[in-house]
Amino acid sequence: MLDFAGGTVVETASGISGLVLALLLGKRNDFGRKAILPSSVVLTVAGAGLLWFSWLGFNAVSELKADEIAASALLITNTAGATGALSWMLVEWKITKKATMLGAASGAMSGLVAITPAAGFVGLGGSIIIGFVAGIIGFMGVFWLKHRFKYDDSLDVFGVHGLNGIWGTLATGIFANPQVNIVGSGLLYGNIKQFFIQILGLVVVILFTGIMTAILYFITSALSRGARVDEETEVMGLDEAVHGERDFELKGLEFS
Amino acid sequence: MLDFAGGTVVETASGISGLVLALLLGKRNDFGRKAILPSSVVLTVAGAGLLWFSWLGFNAVSELKADEIAASALLITNTAGATGALSWMLVEWKITKKATMLGAASGAMSGLVAITPAAGFVGLGGSIIIGFVAGIIGFMGVFWLKHRFKYDDSLDVFGVHGLNGIWGTLATGIFANPQVNIVGSGLLYGNIKQFFIQILGLVVVILFTGIMTAILYFITSALSRGARVDEETEVMGLDEAVHGERDFELKGLEFS
Amino acid sequence: MLDFAGGTVVETASGISGLVLALLLGKRNDFGRKAILPSSVVLTVAGAGLLWFSWLGFNAVSELKADEIAASALLITNTAGATGALSWMLVEWKITKKATMLGAASGAMSGLVAITPAAGFVGLGGSIIIGFVAGIIGFMGVFWLKHRFKYDDSLDVFGVHGLNGIWGTLATGIFANPQVNIVGSGLLYGNIKQFFIQILGLVVVILFTGIMTAILYFITSALSRGARVDEETEVMGLDEAVHGERDFELKGLEFS
Repeated sequence: MLDFAGGTVVETASGISGLVLALLLGKRNDFGRKAILPSSVVLTVAGAGLLWFSWLGFNAVSELKADEIAASALLITNTAGATGALSWMLVEWKITKKATMLGAASGAMSGLVAITPAAGFVGLGGSIIIGFVAGIIGFMGVFWLKHRFKYDDSLDVFGVHGLNGIWGTLATGIFANPQVNIVGSGLLYGNIKQFFIQILGLVVVILFTGIMTAILYFITSALSRGARVDEETEVMGLDEAVHGERDFELKGLEFS
Repeated sequence: MLDFAGGTVVETASGISGLVLALLLGKRNDFGRKAILPSSVVLTVAGAGLLWFSWLGFNAVSELKADEIAASALLITNTAGATGALSWMLVEWKITKKATMLGAASGAMSGLVAITPAAGFVGLGGSIIIGFVAGIIGFMGVFWLKHRFKYDDSLDVFGVHGLNGIWGTLATGIFANPQVNIVGSGLLYGNIKQFFIQILGLVVVILFTGIMTAILYFITSALSRGARVDEETEVMGLDEAVHGERDFELKGLEFS
Repeated sequence: MLDFAGGTVVETASGISGLVLALLLGKRNDFGRKAILPSSVVLTVAGAGLLWFSWLGFNAVSELKADEIAASALLITNTAGATGALSWMLVEWKITKKATMLGAASGAMSGLVAITPAAGFVGLGGSIIIGFVAGIIGFMGVFWLKHRFKYDDSLDVFGVHGLNGIWGTLATGIFANPQVNIVGSGLLYGNIKQFFIQILGLVVVILFTGIMTAILYFITSALSRGARVDEETEVMGLDEAVHGERDFELKGLEFS
């Protein structure tokens, strides 16, 4: 199975874990009645920039050598982040007539997630497509899937990381180019078998992660008298209740 | 012509482009009646720090090799940023008796801009002078030139980037030291011809950029029914009107 | 004497300097009556993250070569930052039942300070212990020592940097492992002499720094008619009085 820098073990696994926990924990009390707005777009974008920069190192270093594949992985990672930002903004613009900075940041994250398993295997063309599709998948995950199935994934771990971890792992089985890295060859280069290996790997990771998360959830909630905080704590917010810190006021938008 | 990391193609070009657009677009409606204050000095300084750090890589990597010239370019870039910050603060202090963090950040940017074309060609002494002069030029560009000629360059692209791109390109023709990099030798090292080549290069870049910007301005404004937003949108702010996001309140200072 | 990246010349020296100045300058007017709260936990944590990242380079580069010792110093620095954050939070949690982000950031700084002299000399085990102890020392320095002796060290330069600079320098004499770096061998590896050399070095640095700081204090305050600002300026705040800038409102907590 091809996974260059953790598209399954990091991204798919965290996305599935997050989804299972969101379903087991249930929704927050005011879910569907109150939207949480970002407290600071400036800080979100600054954080996304730092994350993007770090991702270049994260993916390139998975080669464990300072060679041409590491250099290619770094470049390719950047390209996918950029096309992810672009496609998310295009979809936003098509639907709402307004491309947002928050959308650009989310799209970049989507592209970076999807290129993670593919970074050292695919060429420039593959990375452009992987990132572009990832931005659209992320947008659908956040604005359609979550509302359609009404699970409370407040950080969009499944919509952005889970779905694009899956997409990137499949895409690696499609676009892996033996001219970039002799180790891997995908469907487009005549190796159909690799594509099915990627699917099998995903099924194993999804089942293992989903079941283990549920087991750990039941053990820890049994040990600590339930996994949810009481309603008073939930209204107060966990920053204040658990950590004794509160840094920003929640900007909420009440639905009428 | 000597231009190590883009003093003409990036800095001079963007400065001239910005000036031409500022003249063609005209001033915002409340120009001269209301000053825009920075919404957050802390974030400005944090951003300047990240930019400074990135600039070290930007200039050094223009050598396209990890050799002694790349190492020297990195060090020299840092020095010029530091002396730029210093001289801007000294001028401020002389005039207003107060050295500001915003001034230090602007001075550092001025020094970094000016050293960009020179980074791989000049030695430590040259970089100290280039940065120091750049801080003074930037201050004059922002606090004197703009007010003298009353163009509305709200981001000071011409005052900081344009003027210092020009200064750095000329300074490369003065301070380029063949002992640092065999490729370039400037006026101080007996090569007067290089100085005139730099002037010629600047004239070409300024004319090309200025004329092309004007042509592109007329084409795009013809295609989109004018280049300015209507007054209502201008008052609302483009963040909100065009992107549907608003992250900070404008801090304005009304002149009586 | 072993000091890999400046545990005495940077950390111990600044800590002692800060303490001497805090004693000579005296307390601010409302010390003990008003606590200063952090104006933004988010920015504190972002700054701590950038500092942590930079510290990896700062320590590793002290090897002056890109070899295995530099790589080990980088890894070891990261580990000590992590265990420092962990132990500070554990102590907080034990005492107040609440682990804070501000505590995690302070603990990470404590661990990073303490590992600075040891980075290129100790192994993984040593770094885990050095960081863990550093987090506890930092917590005691900030929440016990300062209140016990009532000196006004508002930035906790002595509690975090001074004490952990001293701890790290001693710890280098204990944990220095000749298998990591042939240059240094500590008490645990049979070289008791090194431990006493470290103590001697600390005594010299502390005496030199303390006395020189006092001398410089008396010279500069004689030249500028006293080292303290007048009470009006102190109440207004030095950002506004000296630099003409004010970016955030002080969040103060009055004691009844």
